[in-house]
Amino acid sequence: MISSKRITVRTLASGAELHIRVYSVRGRDPTAKTVYIQSSMHGSEVQGNAVIAQLLEHFAASPPQGNVVLVPNANPYGINQKGGEYTMGRFDPTTGDNWNRAYFLPQLAPPKALPWPELSRRYRAALGAAVRGELRGNIPFARKLALTLQSLALAADYVLDLHCANNSARHLYAPEYAQDCARYLGIPLILSVPDAFGGALDEAQSCPWWRLWKSLQASGYDELPPASELPQGYTVELGDQERISRADARADAAGILNFLRYKGVVAGRAKAPARSYICPLSCYKVIHSSHAGHTDFAPVLGRQVKRGELLAQTLQFGVVPRWQPTLAEEDCIPVLHYSSAVVHEGDELIKVLTNYRTVQ
Amino acid sequence: MISSKRITVRTLASGAELHIRVYSVRGRDPTAKTVYIQSSMHGSEVQGNAVIAQLLEHFAASPPQGNVVLVPNANPYGINQKGGEYTMGRFDPTTGDNWNRAYFLPQLAPPKALPWPELSRRYRAALGAAVRGELRGNIPFARKLALTLQSLALAADYVLDLHCANNSARHLYAPEYAQDCARYLGIPLILSVPDAFGGALDEAQSCPWWRLWKSLQASGYDELPPASELPQGYTVELGDQERISRADARADAAGILNFLRYKGVVAGRAKAPARSYICPLSCYKVIHSSHAGHTDFAPVLGRQVKRGELLAQTLQFGVVPRWQPTLAEEDCIPVLHYSSAVVHEGDELIKVLTNYRTVQ
Amino acid sequence: MISSKRITVRTLASGAELHIRVYSVRGRDPTAKTVYIQSSMHGSEVQGNAVIAQLLEHFAASPPQGNVVLVPNANPYGINQKGGEYTMGRFDPTTGDNWNRAYFLPQLAPPKALPWPELSRRYRAALGAAVRGELRGNIPFARKLALTLQSLALAADYVLDLHCANNSARHLYAPEYAQDCARYLGIPLILSVPDAFGGALDEAQSCPWWRLWKSLQASGYDELPPASELPQGYTVELGDQERISRADARADAAGILNFLRYKGVVAGRAKAPARSYICPLSCYKVIHSSHAGHTDFAPVLGRQVKRGELLAQTLQFGVVPRWQPTLAEEDCIPVLHYSSAVVHEGDELIKVLTNYRTVQ
Amino acid sequence: MISSKRITVRTLASGAELHIRVYSVRGRDPTAKTVYIQSSMHGSEVQGNAVIAQLLEHFAASPPQGNVVLVPNANPYGINQKGGEYTMGRFDPTTGDNWNRAYFLPQLAPPKALPWPELSRRYRAALGAAVRGELRGNIPFARKLALTLQSLALAADYVLDLHCANNSARHLYAPEYAQDCARYLGIPLILSVPDAFGGALDEAQSCPWWRLWKSLQASGYDELPPASELPQGYTVELGDQERISRADARADAAGILNFLRYKGVVAGRAKAPARSYICPLSCYKVIHSSHAGHTDFAPVLGRQVKRGELLAQTLQFGVVPRWQPTLAEEDCIPVLHYSSAVVHEGDELIKVLTNYRTVQ
Repeated sequence: MISSKRITVRTLASGAELHIRVYSVRGRDPTAKTVYIQSSMHGSEVQGNAVIAQLLEHFAASPPQGNVVLVPNANPYGINQKGGEYTMGRFDPTTGDNWNRAYFLPQLAPPKALPWPELSRRYRAALGAAVRGELRGNIPFARKLALTLQSLALAADYVLDLHCANNSARHLYAPEYAQDCARYLGIPLILSVPDAFGGALDEAQSCPWWRLWKSLQASGYDELPPASELPQGYTVELGDQERISRADARADAAGILNFLRYKGVVAGRAKAPARSYICPLSCYKVIHSSHAGHTDFAPVLGRQVKRGELLAQTLQFGVVPRWQPTLAEEDCIPVLHYSSAVVHEGDELIKVLTNYRTVQ
Repeated sequence: MISSKRITVRTLASGAELHIRVYSVRGRDPTAKTVYIQSSMHGSEVQGNAVIAQLLEHFAASPPQGNVVLVPNANPYGINQKGGEYTMGRFDPTTGDNWNRAYFLPQLAPPKALPWPELSRRYRAALGAAVRGELRGNIPFARKLALTLQSLALAADYVLDLHCANNSARHLYAPEYAQDCARYLGIPLILSVPDAFGGALDEAQSCPWWRLWKSLQASGYDELPPASELPQGYTVELGDQERISRADARADAAGILNFLRYKGVVAGRAKAPARSYICPLSCYKVIHSSHAGHTDFAPVLGRQVKRGELLAQTLQFGVVPRWQPTLAEEDCIPVLHYSSAVVHEGDELIKVLTNYRTVQ
Repeated sequence: MISSKRITVRTLASGAELHIRVYSVRGRDPTAKTVYIQSSMHGSEVQGNAVIAQLLEHFAASPPQGNVVLVPNANPYGINQKGGEYTMGRFDPTTGDNWNRAYFLPQLAPPKALPWPELSRRYRAALGAAVRGELRGNIPFARKLALTLQSLALAADYVLDLHCANNSARHLYAPEYAQDCARYLGIPLILSVPDAFGGALDEAQSCPWWRLWKSLQASGYDELPPASELPQGYTVELGDQERISRADARADAAGILNFLRYKGVVAGRAKAPARSYICPLSCYKVIHSSHAGHTDFAPVLGRQVKRGELLAQTLQFGVVPRWQPTLAEEDCIPVLHYSSAVVHEGDELIKVLTNYRTVQ
Repeated sequence: MISSKRITVRTLASGAELHIRVYSVRGRDPTAKTVYIQSSMHGSEVQGNAVIAQLLEHFAASPPQGNVVLVPNANPYGINQKGGEYTMGRFDPTTGDNWNRAYFLPQLAPPKALPWPELSRRYRAALGAAVRGELRGNIPFARKLALTLQSLALAADYVLDLHCANNSARHLYAPEYAQDCARYLGIPLILSVPDAFGGALDEAQSCPWWRLWKSLQASGYDELPPASELPQGYTVELGDQERISRADARADAAGILNFLRYKGVVAGRAKAPARSYICPLSCYKVIHSSHAGHTDFAPVLGRQVKRGELLAQTLQFGVVPRWQPTLAEEDCIPVLHYSSAVVHEGDELIKVLTNYRTVQ
């Protein structure tokens, strides 16, 4: 059964109200794991909306085992802001604050050593209370929106935050403790995220449980589940921003359903993952442009490139025109490049996986 | 022989000076027709820059017959303005004025009935004087830039203003009197422009001559050349904005060289044009979106579409998600679509050729 | 009696609906003249909103003779768009189109020579039908919004479009045929607008009647009222944009009420106007900056300045810092200046009345 | 003696080069303390440029004792970016990054216990080497610009970073250990900054010395000078952004000269400071707007306000218009308010000093 409700998140100067719509899919098995999926926290990153539509169509026909909550269009303010035809949706146009850096990491006292089901239930309740408490303050909109979404997300075991990135190959961010699970999402490029909180939703979901787990382990708590069974948060990057494809959404949704089968949220048997490239977050490198001008990006994104190969060439008009090459300084996999051919010196040109390992 | 010089066009608040660079290629035959080519008057429309680089490379090896003047990066202010990663280059961010609407149509007295070479020489000189006079006033920057470029352009017989357009198939604007010539540019989608001045460079080049021709014809002047031999201005749209491709630039340059051969600016024999679709400007229709949401654009741009076929579908999140179709209301050729999947009601969704004729 | 209703004008990509609110004040005398007042068509020009609130408060206590329709916040899309803290509300951020250039001038056949009350009633009805017809097409949002407002406005005899302007003294635009009436608004700086249509609301209200009047006069129609009794449109500029003052709104509203008394829309006797400065629109000059840098604006706006006096000085950092003066080239009254001290060469620095006449 | 040089900081896509200009004033006494002053790191905050021009004029007539380095227009990229007439200069329009958060806090090993002059000389040299090392990496422009400025700043004893803030009263940020010194700047509203690094220049100047001082104190080093004699960084907020006043700059410069006299950088006797209000940074509160609409800001900035007094009122258009009050929840001094009357729910409305102490 699928229900939906609207939550008003902001009143604008004109008097218009902005809302998010929350779709809730009731699972068949109350003991199954649950999932929260949102999309478009960055307004221009819209492919996840098509994926959520596709998943809702799927669940209408084939209900899941566990509860699924889906929030498309998670940031109605960011979605609506235009500069030219483009969507100025990655940061608040007033403050410059990245919309995906305003989530909250509650600092909770270490819990009493109860049995794991009870301990984790109480811990989750305490997280929720902390987030709702923070939400009651006099806070900026970016924070209010993030906490509103977080209070929905933290009730779930798994959180998938669907984004896109510039011009990019599909890739994802997974916490180190869940990188094997991440492979079931069907996206070969995986960034392995350490236990550090920078304000993003995936971290806000993973870090509290990870830290709990480490502190219980240190204290010799003896009912500790394997870390890979903890709640976990992922950021999934579904290709280019400013673009939506209903056809691609079917493939994207198939990957998510495979992950949910692996986790028991959806019935059936998950397919084994294909080859993956796993890269520590610290080895995900930005190449800032040494050249200003007009850039032709060379490589197919997502493909391995050897040291010395051409990554991009930038056209400059001096006494004669000249194309300035940017070469790979090490073996790498280009993941994304700048959205524009118009590049100033010091702009973020290309991001590449380095020191990644290949898992079959 | 190719020479280049810089012209300073604006000083910014920081004290920085912006300049354009003018490349001049001396032709081998002083009697040959001449051409002026500029690119990127809209800052995000950069493919023409690669085409100019390619043409300069070609002319360095194979000098043309007629003089060729090339101005890449024609609008250094527009090129440098960013909103997010995108280039806010189609209009002045301060005034909203489209950079390609600030050219000048001089109103000249009807010339004396001299022999055509002398008459046209004097007319061109008078046009130049009028533009330079206008340039001396206390004028806004958009006007100053346009007039500076126009004063370079009007010395040439043919003017090619290289643009790009959103997500688009290659297409071009040609004056009605030159639509057969236009086919030699190798771009099948041709908009046939009437004698009306809206401020664009192609019009600023064509209209004065067209009007002269009509007035001489009306007065019974008997040395009148065919209209197709008049000076003429074209706007050539080289695919997507925000993208530059050195490989595509070779093909784009080949089309321009074919046109120049046809006109005798370059030696050699032009290839006969392939099939073209010619559409009166008044039949180039904008479809404004009736639906707000996230739009998946259906058709391949530049391909003929039948009435009733799907042009786009827009995802909306009501009680259940729904894809709203936009159908073709008549047979047409979609030429370009909105640059973003994020669409408000009333945004310019798609532009299509209607009532076009096919020329083999 | 005051009633209000909401009209939805646009659905945004997020699904949010934008609306305008129309307040209608029923007058006591059905034969009295009527007025339409709107504010904030440019989103950052908000003082008119406070004035409308003040007028509504006034009319609640003292009902007018004629009907009054008031639309604050006339452009909810423009009001909501931010760039930094500022409101990007003067033009559509996607197209660059000035919101106040999208109104419509119907081209109507000359009416039959009926008695004036009947002739004018039919003419008004035909104007309304033309605007509503245009509104039914596939049109961009800027046009849809303008026509929606225009269809409300043209039912009234007098239209006041409340704006603000950069940093500015209060001033107004009135059609030439109504410049004596305009003086009753209590704002001394008056621009006298000729019969030319550029897309603004005041013109869309004045021009059709002005042209009717001229054509009837030419045809020898003998019931013609004086031009000053025709319907008329004004643009009233209420000081600085981005600023609202409840205290100032009382004075602004008092001026409007005085005008309405003069016109019989409100009961009571109008005060005679004070000294005015009336300037033909063609003599309202823009001074574009010859200097780039940081500008300190010298004169008190609205005050007469002699030729050679300092209008502004611009700081530049060369080998030593230097303040570059901009002097008045003729006697004038500075009306407004650029909103920012940061000025590029060719920016619109100051606007001044020249060749104005003083009316006691 | 005053000399100046230009440093190129960025090449733009158009090929234009942006530079900063560094003015160096040689002091008469090589043993005197030195100062570094920059302005306009945020492009719209320009009053400091006029102050630097004024100081240069002063030093040309009256050379200082210590060396003075002045960098106006410190961020030529930020100064040049426009959105409408306003300067989009507080954050990078591409990344959203605040320009004043990209400075660097080197982590240095504890120095050997040498005599203080030698120890501090070596420490300063190590700071410089660390900053220059960081500058050599492949870094984004915001970082490159900040480090270029920081490498100039850290050679000085005192750093004044001149900013402005929205609509604001003059105020300043000073490290806790220098709050008595800060009073000599002649600005009564003082924020007392703890030892925490958030990326701003004042912190980048103060923190390394503060931490050194604490570590030496902890280790029992016996030549430790009083903390108030350490190098120190200040951020000085000179009123409204987007505004420059040559007249006000004379008063602003007089305050800075008084501080420099107190510190011995300029000869002469400093005037004793007037009454100051000193507020811990943690008590500098943002009031986010609970109301969306059009806001009239009530109080005079910089004046003490009692709990319950009106801070602002926001106009909303419901069935009837209504002004919604925002009241002071505690005794406070409003320091700045939002730059626009157009306010969305959750925007940063007003910032106030609370729990401040008054020092005579």
